[in-house]
Amino acid sequence: MQHFLYKLENITNNSIGDVMGHNIDLSKYKIRTDLAIEAMNDEEKTMVTYENGIKITNVDIDAETSKKIGKKSGKYITIEFDDITDHDSFKKVEDVFIKQLKSMVNGENILVVGLGNEHSTPDSLGPKVASKVLVTRHLFMLGDVDSGYRCVSSLEPGVLGQTGLETSEIIKAIVDMFKPDLVIVIDALASQSIDRVNKTIQMTDTGIHPGSGVGNSRKEISSEVLNVPCIAIGVPTVVDAVTIVSDTIDYMYKHYVYSKDKNPLHKFILKPNYKDIKIDDVDKQQLLGMVGKLNNSEIKQLIFEVLSPIGYNLMVTVKEVDFIIDKLSLLIANGINATLHENIK
Amino acid sequence: MQHFLYKLENITNNSIGDVMGHNIDLSKYKIRTDLAIEAMNDEEKTMVTYENGIKITNVDIDAETSKKIGKKSGKYITIEFDDITDHDSFKKVEDVFIKQLKSMVNGENILVVGLGNEHSTPDSLGPKVASKVLVTRHLFMLGDVDSGYRCVSSLEPGVLGQTGLETSEIIKAIVDMFKPDLVIVIDALASQSIDRVNKTIQMTDTGIHPGSGVGNSRKEISSEVLNVPCIAIGVPTVVDAVTIVSDTIDYMYKHYVYSKDKNPLHKFILKPNYKDIKIDDVDKQQLLGMVGKLNNSEIKQLIFEVLSPIGYNLMVTVKEVDFIIDKLSLLIANGINATLHENIK
Amino acid sequence: MQHFLYKLENITNNSIGDVMGHNIDLSKYKIRTDLAIEAMNDEEKTMVTYENGIKITNVDIDAETSKKIGKKSGKYITIEFDDITDHDSFKKVEDVFIKQLKSMVNGENILVVGLGNEHSTPDSLGPKVASKVLVTRHLFMLGDVDSGYRCVSSLEPGVLGQTGLETSEIIKAIVDMFKPDLVIVIDALASQSIDRVNKTIQMTDTGIHPGSGVGNSRKEISSEVLNVPCIAIGVPTVVDAVTIVSDTIDYMYKHYVYSKDKNPLHKFILKPNYKDIKIDDVDKQQLLGMVGKLNNSEIKQLIFEVLSPIGYNLMVTVKEVDFIIDKLSLLIANGINATLHENIK
Amino acid sequence: MQHFLYKLENITNNSIGDVMGHNIDLSKYKIRTDLAIEAMNDEEKTMVTYENGIKITNVDIDAETSKKIGKKSGKYITIEFDDITDHDSFKKVEDVFIKQLKSMVNGENILVVGLGNEHSTPDSLGPKVASKVLVTRHLFMLGDVDSGYRCVSSLEPGVLGQTGLETSEIIKAIVDMFKPDLVIVIDALASQSIDRVNKTIQMTDTGIHPGSGVGNSRKEISSEVLNVPCIAIGVPTVVDAVTIVSDTIDYMYKHYVYSKDKNPLHKFILKPNYKDIKIDDVDKQQLLGMVGKLNNSEIKQLIFEVLSPIGYNLMVTVKEVDFIIDKLSLLIANGINATLHENIK
Repeated sequence: MQHFLYKLENITNNSIGDVMGHNIDLSKYKIRTDLAIEAMNDEEKTMVTYENGIKITNVDIDAETSKKIGKKSGKYITIEFDDITDHDSFKKVEDVFIKQLKSMVNGENILVVGLGNEHSTPDSLGPKVASKVLVTRHLFMLGDVDSGYRCVSSLEPGVLGQTGLETSEIIKAIVDMFKPDLVIVIDALASQSIDRVNKTIQMTDTGIHPGSGVGNSRKEISSEVLNVPCIAIGVPTVVDAVTIVSDTIDYMYKHYVYSKDKNPLHKFILKPNYKDIKIDDVDKQQLLGMVGKLNNSEIKQLIFEVLSPIGYNLMVTVKEVDFIIDKLSLLIANGINATLHENIK
Repeated sequence: MQHFLYKLENITNNSIGDVMGHNIDLSKYKIRTDLAIEAMNDEEKTMVTYENGIKITNVDIDAETSKKIGKKSGKYITIEFDDITDHDSFKKVEDVFIKQLKSMVNGENILVVGLGNEHSTPDSLGPKVASKVLVTRHLFMLGDVDSGYRCVSSLEPGVLGQTGLETSEIIKAIVDMFKPDLVIVIDALASQSIDRVNKTIQMTDTGIHPGSGVGNSRKEISSEVLNVPCIAIGVPTVVDAVTIVSDTIDYMYKHYVYSKDKNPLHKFILKPNYKDIKIDDVDKQQLLGMVGKLNNSEIKQLIFEVLSPIGYNLMVTVKEVDFIIDKLSLLIANGINATLHENIK
Repeated sequence: MQHFLYKLENITNNSIGDVMGHNIDLSKYKIRTDLAIEAMNDEEKTMVTYENGIKITNVDIDAETSKKIGKKSGKYITIEFDDITDHDSFKKVEDVFIKQLKSMVNGENILVVGLGNEHSTPDSLGPKVASKVLVTRHLFMLGDVDSGYRCVSSLEPGVLGQTGLETSEIIKAIVDMFKPDLVIVIDALASQSIDRVNKTIQMTDTGIHPGSGVGNSRKEISSEVLNVPCIAIGVPTVVDAVTIVSDTIDYMYKHYVYSKDKNPLHKFILKPNYKDIKIDDVDKQQLLGMVGKLNNSEIKQLIFEVLSPIGYNLMVTVKEVDFIIDKLSLLIANGINATLHENIK
Repeated sequence: MQHFLYKLENITNNSIGDVMGHNIDLSKYKIRTDLAIEAMNDEEKTMVTYENGIKITNVDIDAETSKKIGKKSGKYITIEFDDITDHDSFKKVEDVFIKQLKSMVNGENILVVGLGNEHSTPDSLGPKVASKVLVTRHLFMLGDVDSGYRCVSSLEPGVLGQTGLETSEIIKAIVDMFKPDLVIVIDALASQSIDRVNKTIQMTDTGIHPGSGVGNSRKEISSEVLNVPCIAIGVPTVVDAVTIVSDTIDYMYKHYVYSKDKNPLHKFILKPNYKDIKIDDVDKQQLLGMVGKLNNSEIKQLIFEVLSPIGYNLMVTVKEVDFIIDKLSLLIANGINATLHENIK
């Protein structure tokens, strides 16, 4: 016990396993995120605007930052919203999405690729979008298309476990055969925070990368690999238990400080605003003892070490996933159609 | 009118439009069949066997016959059955299917392609089979597969109207990328007779050909195009109104002759046996007047000319199509799995 | 043979089995239609109007006519249209449907019942409509509903083969429990003519009756049985082979006369207009011999006798049934929502 | 702050809101469980057996215990298993399920009711089971059923938000109309622990009760309400974030103690066995500070107070929910069929 406490007092970059006096060599918890805004700490390089209550974040990651945060260099646009279940909110988010997507799209011959497993609801966003995209390439082949439409095709390549084929290689083969000017891939992502699940759309010209996201062993899908520009549109639809617990611990700190220092009026506030709350180390250790001494990534590593060996680091999704995926896929498909075909909307 | 009758007396190879005194130059009704047994008249070149009441027809079409009947030269195996809705019948047909498929399959690295539109029930046979095939290629890539399994992958390329991409070109691109030893394509076909709908499975090493079948403009999918052997498995799931009517007229003749010459005992027979009935021209003309003077393909052309301009040459399927397609896709997927993986069953 | 011809010359009300010299006592072909306009011959009692190219037929069947044609006495409104697959046509038909439905609906507490089997595409119209109806009864129970909404509930009772329970008795039980003011049932019907399949919506205040329609043994669903007003909305989505063949024979006559007497300009007309064509018995017998001597219902009986014993009087639907049922169910659900809730649209 | 710490030192049964110095009167976190084994602490009244590695717990809750733990008095059988995704495990669990279900079922005329929303995957267990149950009642009505089959019917009543009708009242109406001897209801439940999600089947003769489970306002479905015996079969398929976090905190304690006192051999153990670990208050407070002073239900209340105001007490399900629900519904339907019809299996 003394030994343990001693170590706890001296933690620096040690493995959390060591911190806990636990030497089993677990594979480390990887911060698995496809969202640049989750990886990006340097707020100077991000530009945030608001439209109709929807937050739009533009990040241009340069080569230097890319090395630091492990996200590929390029342009990332993130749209964050509260709700798309009613008609008005849906339209507002759709409008913002179209405007931002238009700023990224170039080319006349476009292949839309819906990644994911259509038979698994949380992973079916990509195929559902692809099946709602207005496809015109076959009409262009016949020669009879009005102006106001681009040449659009779509593909649902399935997932490795269904097909036995690397998704990136399927797409590469199709791109080489049909030679589009631009590839747009849509995918369901894993989130690193519970407040972004189903409430964020990211667009990037850097494509899709293994290691980020849900950690499947699919290979990169990007302009470098495909030799044509590649835009990736992603929505986080799942989150792991580690994230749920670590986010909750963070909210516990804020709740504690907020409650402790509270203005008597706070009791009438239904939804507390934690935004400007500063938490110091004393607060953290008072509330959570030794765990309070750990920083955020150490806490995640600890939770991972606790849950993984017993099989409970579940990747989860919300109970209403069917409804949400239907709405999200409709919004993104509408947005792609309006972006690619000026005759629409 | 006299002129018309005169012409009717003299019909030879004239267009039925002329026969009817009707010169509108309609595109001719094409005998659209993917089934070799429907195209094949020369019974000497077919070998018929029965197993458990299931009819198995082997046809090897040589170059000469190929020209005559417009079916590609190669091997055709056709299985005809009455029912697969109960467990016993299902198993019997499955066993015959496995035995016949094994006789055609060679190679260790096999790509199974499910053609058709999964969102259109009568056309969803291919995708439904593909999604039930036991895929192993990704496990072979990892190196850890027991003996008794072949390296199998699958693909659902969609249809031209969904993707904007030629299905044959998608498959070509995938074959070039992944280099399987053998491609097996599964497709829903159009039938040229009502008694084969959902009751026939055809296997052939000649692939899939445009012009035959439902007449979509998809291009050929065959060993010549793909540069690897290609087996096509097809089940007729739709039939057009022309076929329903012309088949009915044929049964009317048989019913007429059967009734006319009838044995008094016939009245106790619930299901008449029309097999050995001979119909002569006098019978036909007595029953059906001028129409009775037409041969089978002229009758089809006439019905086509009657129905097409008013939009009623519908391509139809049976009311129970959802149930039947589920059963058929399970049978074919089970059969492919047992054929490709000796460890199964 | 002489005997046969003799009988053929003297046919009156004889069974077609006798006509054909065939005495097997087959169950007669029942004219199975749920559409009043198909049963109604007396054109004096129907009122036809057109709106935007959509034909609207109002029939009020009184007690006397009811006995004659075997349709229950009451009000029947039938909407006939060519197409609802493009946005404009869809809207036009929807508008007409709403206007006509509004003329029939009374009451504030309405139960919408979707009849049919949701797992069988051609029979899934009812459940698909019910699932898209805006349901409010539970909100009324809580007390917080804006004016402009009626109290609406819905039910998908399934079919006898799925549940083992008589559908009419399920509905009776629910109506007795929840006491709506009005029941609206939606069902897929069988058509007696190929040109009405998926192109007709019938509304009636007489409910649904066994014997008419697809002939399932479900019992009557009507105001008499339920003790509350009951409106039935039906769309013919299937047709049997007998109908396809007999309709085609009818079109053959018209095509024959049209071609025979043709104006030289007819050859330039792509879609012939058969509307005012008069066919006499001589024409019919010249074209179709003995069959030409039969009237329309005798021909149906003959075809039924030919096809039924060999199992080919299939009930069929169009190949595109998934797409069509989606469109139709959306149109009817939109129409019910706009009719019941004035705040909608 | 002093005040707060003081209160923290003296916590007894206070609201956690008070403990945290936070007086906002949140609705308390209700321990929402449909699983008797989760509510039952008195181990004397439970009987545990194992079969093929599957844990079977029998609890008979008497009137006295019922009051104490808030679970209705009656018989509860719980089956706990690790996996049903491979064929062998599936069969073993199925066998145990059949044996236990047989011990509860009596009667010849049985109504199977699938509760839940078929369009929401995590809630679709009930409808999926109901649609796979072998229904025979309509055949019994016709009189032609072999011995070895019971008279079985099924119902999918939908959910309040879909139908606007109270589910319990729909079932009551149907039971009154069709008078079965026994009602079996199947439902997806909420779990109070992450290790039971999709790994537990509970059978009880007490029916389904509001307040337990996911907290929907549906009313009781039980023998008291229906006037016939009522067996409820439930599987927890969702869990809330509060449970995930509180379970994780519990595992943190165990992991801490296990690691601290560890045997040098522990480092070679991949899956630690926490079963016999005793955690004392000193350990808890060292690890988690003030939070370590709270008991399990106080921790839940705290997490609830932290997450609810900001909308993050999500009800979640596993990412693979589609696959799992398919397997579970097949297992339960197979089990019901084998239990009700001795001719099956």
